Amino acid sequence: MKTLRVDLGERAYPIYIGPDLLGQPELIEPFVAGSQVLIVTNETVAPLYLERVRASLSHKTVQQVVLPDGEEFKSLSVVNTIFDALLAQRFERSCTLVALGGGVVGDMTGFAAACYQRGVPFIQIPTTLLSQVDSSVGGKTGVNHPLGKNMIGAFHQPRCVVADTRTLDTLADRQLKAGMAEVIKYGLINDLAFFEWLEAHMEGLLARDQALLSDAIERSCQIKAQVVGADERERGVRALLNLGHTFGHAIETGMGYGEWLHGEAVAAGMVVAAELSVQLGWLDEGSLQRMQRLLERAGLPVQAPKSMAVERFFELMTIDKKVQDGRVRLVLMRAIGDSLVTGEVAPEQIKGALKRHLAAA
Amino acid sequence: MKTLRVDLGERAYPIYIGPDLLGQPELIEPFVAGSQVLIVTNETVAPLYLERVRASLSHKTVQQVVLPDGEEFKSLSVVNTIFDALLAQRFERSCTLVALGGGVVGDMTGFAAACYQRGVPFIQIPTTLLSQVDSSVGGKTGVNHPLGKNMIGAFHQPRCVVADTRTLDTLADRQLKAGMAEVIKYGLINDLAFFEWLEAHMEGLLARDQALLSDAIERSCQIKAQVVGADERERGVRALLNLGHTFGHAIETGMGYGEWLHGEAVAAGMVVAAELSVQLGWLDEGSLQRMQRLLERAGLPVQAPKSMAVERFFELMTIDKKVQDGRVRLVLMRAIGDSLVTGEVAPEQIKGALKRHLAAA
Repeated sequence: MKTLRVDLGERAYPIYIGPDLLGQPELIEPFVAGSQVLIVTNETVAPLYLERVRASLSHKTVQQVVLPDGEEFKSLSVVNTIFDALLAQRFERSCTLVALGGGVVGDMTGFAAACYQRGVPFIQIPTTLLSQVDSSVGGKTGVNHPLGKNMIGAFHQPRCVVADTRTLDTLADRQLKAGMAEVIKYGLINDLAFFEWLEAHMEGLLARDQALLSDAIERSCQIKAQVVGADERERGVRALLNLGHTFGHAIETGMGYGEWLHGEAVAAGMVVAAELSVQLGWLDEGSLQRMQRLLERAGLPVQAPKSMAVERFFELMTIDKKVQDGRVRLVLMRAIGDSLVTGEVAPEQIKGALKRHLAAA
Repeated sequence: MKTLRVDLGERAYPIYIGPDLLGQPELIEPFVAGSQVLIVTNETVAPLYLERVRASLSHKTVQQVVLPDGEEFKSLSVVNTIFDALLAQRFERSCTLVALGGGVVGDMTGFAAACYQRGVPFIQIPTTLLSQVDSSVGGKTGVNHPLGKNMIGAFHQPRCVVADTRTLDTLADRQLKAGMAEVIKYGLINDLAFFEWLEAHMEGLLARDQALLSDAIERSCQIKAQVVGADERERGVRALLNLGHTFGHAIETGMGYGEWLHGEAVAAGMVVAAELSVQLGWLDEGSLQRMQRLLERAGLPVQAPKSMAVERFFELMTIDKKVQDGRVRLVLMRAIGDSLVTGEVAPEQIKGALKRHLAAA
């Protein structure tokens, strides 16, 4: 088992990474303060892992909420069903919430924990690669709004994260690949050596080699923790983590939540960002192709959907949170392992890149 | 004009108190960072003050949301209408929200600001006595749930508070009196001299003497700021501010939100708390009577509603946030100006006090 400490002062917490961690109740026990625990999970994960997690909390009063599965249910009204359960069971401020599932479950449970009685503790047990490498670090919680993704939320750090790599055995191939998009992203934004390691091990990772997965998750979380530690509230450098996300969110929103997986949209979005970087003369064509090759080996899309018109695509980008004073803030690339945040790219240049990309699709 | 500084480190902010402050745009201007401002108000306050506040933001892009008036609308679904407006108008993370109205508007606007894009700045312009002396200090924001008051929310401090005492001229008598319950509470919990000052000036305050009101608001905010400064997240001493509130919330919930005003329920709740204190031998009978006299002079109820049965009353108290490990945490009194928090009173003693109180009603 690997232990990574996310250093955020009094909100610091550990991430445990490795196989068969769900069978180790001593990992989460120290972080359950009171006697009441609510496990929030979804219909897909509950039959697989709920009983095991319940069993590891045998000395507590444990209740559960099983949500429908899917990004389209990441809404304020579904979070309200968590509040309903907490209040119907008279959960006190000393209770603990446990998020058992992917990013959607984690984001909604974390947001419910942030708001219930103005803040109660929560523990994350991410069961998808995406949530193990992304939402387990950084404390971003929240829900979508019909007009924009993750527009309603809070910063709320978990007490601990348990990333059991065995849970990836039951993950659908498509979900595993989508998570790999974020793993590749960490290499792209600031770690060429990690990108090269991924080039060397992509097939083993997709074959769910436990040791390789543990290494990839650890390195991804390290990179994210380092960036978040320097900028918890996303005022500056943290924005690097959004490589591919402004384009990607537009794809997710434009196609309807759930149609494209988040990681798939991010993969295509990273390609658009890299193409724009090439067109601006910041990135060489060879790096773009090298990045596309690794994404393709990971089974990820490198093209945004043809059906999206340029104007609509751009409009959706401007609703994203990364807009400041009307300028879209983009993460672009100078090299593999070297990215930057800029608000200086003119709308016409962005639209030009979208146009070329969609024409090539 | 009086200026009070609420000292919370990097979240410190000023409260401006006095007549005719709405006509002074220079007070809020420094706290509006970006160009987009959303004023949130309600149907009662909008015709009175909305245009004046809009006019003081003439250099900004100003939008507005006018909510229905009343505690029964303090819900997650009504907050969602604020998110709808923010997203429909494409408000960015650099926007500012302005709460123009009483506590309900302030709590919902503050909560919307806490959650929109995971946190944007907000300014409070409280237009009721209650909100000027209570919600303007402390950063508690949130909404009610059908099963409990203020159960969903966040701590989110405003950038500044403008308490224009002239706005109290248009406040209904019943609302003014309800606000006075919280003013009296500050004297009761830790300031005998302020309680005596209120005894000397109650009639002038109810006649809306601007200078007296400014003094009362300033002293109330000072006491609250001092308590909150020592305990922003309500882990200890801040609970003193809840004198009368656990009983009061049960009255509000039991009678249905909006039937009893918050301040009215708190007034009756403080009497029950004082009676229980007398029965436990902690408070003398004379202080109880003295406190009842001042509440009566302020036109406030000193009796909980007869229609509430003891068991139901107690049950409602145990859903309140102030419960810890099943024990109701109460604020009780040792003297006027001297209160304490305790979780040591047995349920039977609390029910006994309720029984006597309701029998006497």
